[in-house]
Amino acid sequence: MQIAEPLLIAIEELSKLPGIGKKTAQRLAIFLLKSEDPQVDNLINAIKDLKLKLRFCERCFNLSEEELCSICQSEKRDKSVLCVVEEASDVMAIEKTHEFRGLYHVLGGVLSPLSGVTPETLHIKELLKRFETEDFKEVILALNPDTEGETTSLYLSKLMKPFGITVTRIARGLPIGGDLEFADDATIGRAILNRSSL
Amino acid sequence: MQIAEPLLIAIEELSKLPGIGKKTAQRLAIFLLKSEDPQVDNLINAIKDLKLKLRFCERCFNLSEEELCSICQSEKRDKSVLCVVEEASDVMAIEKTHEFRGLYHVLGGVLSPLSGVTPETLHIKELLKRFETEDFKEVILALNPDTEGETTSLYLSKLMKPFGITVTRIARGLPIGGDLEFADDATIGRAILNRSSL
Repeated sequence: MQIAEPLLIAIEELSKLPGIGKKTAQRLAIFLLKSEDPQVDNLINAIKDLKLKLRFCERCFNLSEEELCSICQSEKRDKSVLCVVEEASDVMAIEKTHEFRGLYHVLGGVLSPLSGVTPETLHIKELLKRFETEDFKEVILALNPDTEGETTSLYLSKLMKPFGITVTRIARGLPIGGDLEFADDATIGRAILNRSSL
Repeated sequence: MQIAEPLLIAIEELSKLPGIGKKTAQRLAIFLLKSEDPQVDNLINAIKDLKLKLRFCERCFNLSEEELCSICQSEKRDKSVLCVVEEASDVMAIEKTHEFRGLYHVLGGVLSPLSGVTPETLHIKELLKRFETEDFKEVILALNPDTEGETTSLYLSKLMKPFGITVTRIARGLPIGGDLEFADDATIGRAILNRSSL
């Protein structure tokens, strides 16, 4: 028996999503097939609206429903601190902590010459341009603590030096609730180097 | 910052899918947001077609594009053997093995009185009706080897007794490539009981 064409196509399309393999895609497709029509319509409309109603903020490239995102528009944010992140999802992660009240700049990735990500493909030009019109006292680099993130952080800090702005980087150390025994050497080493006095 | 409404809705809808939590849903939503329009349209159309073009076979309740599924319609299948399974996905799994050339009957679930699944909610009536019009020599019960599956198998075998048809059940034992050391007691016990001569 050949599997019915519409099911095959649905499995194919669903398995293009990140982290969804063929087996999960098949389970999802059959789940959708057995769901009530309104439920499936809700999902379809939600995905459509995502593309129709959302775009990227023209200033910081965060997700936005208007030209400028709600953070750039807000009067309550500290406009002297800028936090540079890789992706819009990082903005959401940091906002959830309620620890940061400044502005953001989303790079759209990190430098990775082998994957074809060069400074030109990221929003670095736009970042430097913001220094002309906005008055930042501190720039916090909050990129992921991996090789690409570190390289990009170094690259950006060199670029920003001429502007005379304090450039900081989020702390590396043991995650809260983590276990020293199971942490990797690099993390423990960094945690010791960056120890703080009590 | 409140997360943009369309994104929140998309995350909400995506996390209703089985096995998709909030974090995965957020990752999927942002992936879709960053995807090209045609790619997202393909996914939406695939899901729509799933509901529009597919239905359940009127005889065996397998997935079908027509009144009868391709297996029920086929002239090449052995019409004297019937394999009873829980879900249409089980038909696909068995078809992939190319070990079975008979017909199927999809129950649509297994007996589970606590979850409200009674004999009336399954396609058991339709199964018994097939014995009047079709001529089966053997019925293979291929339900999952869990409590509900076992109970349903016993229930069905009792119901089928008056028809004088040979009722068999797929073998339980160690999975191919499995490791005896890590198998559970029940599986090892069953494998020993059901040993076959070499």
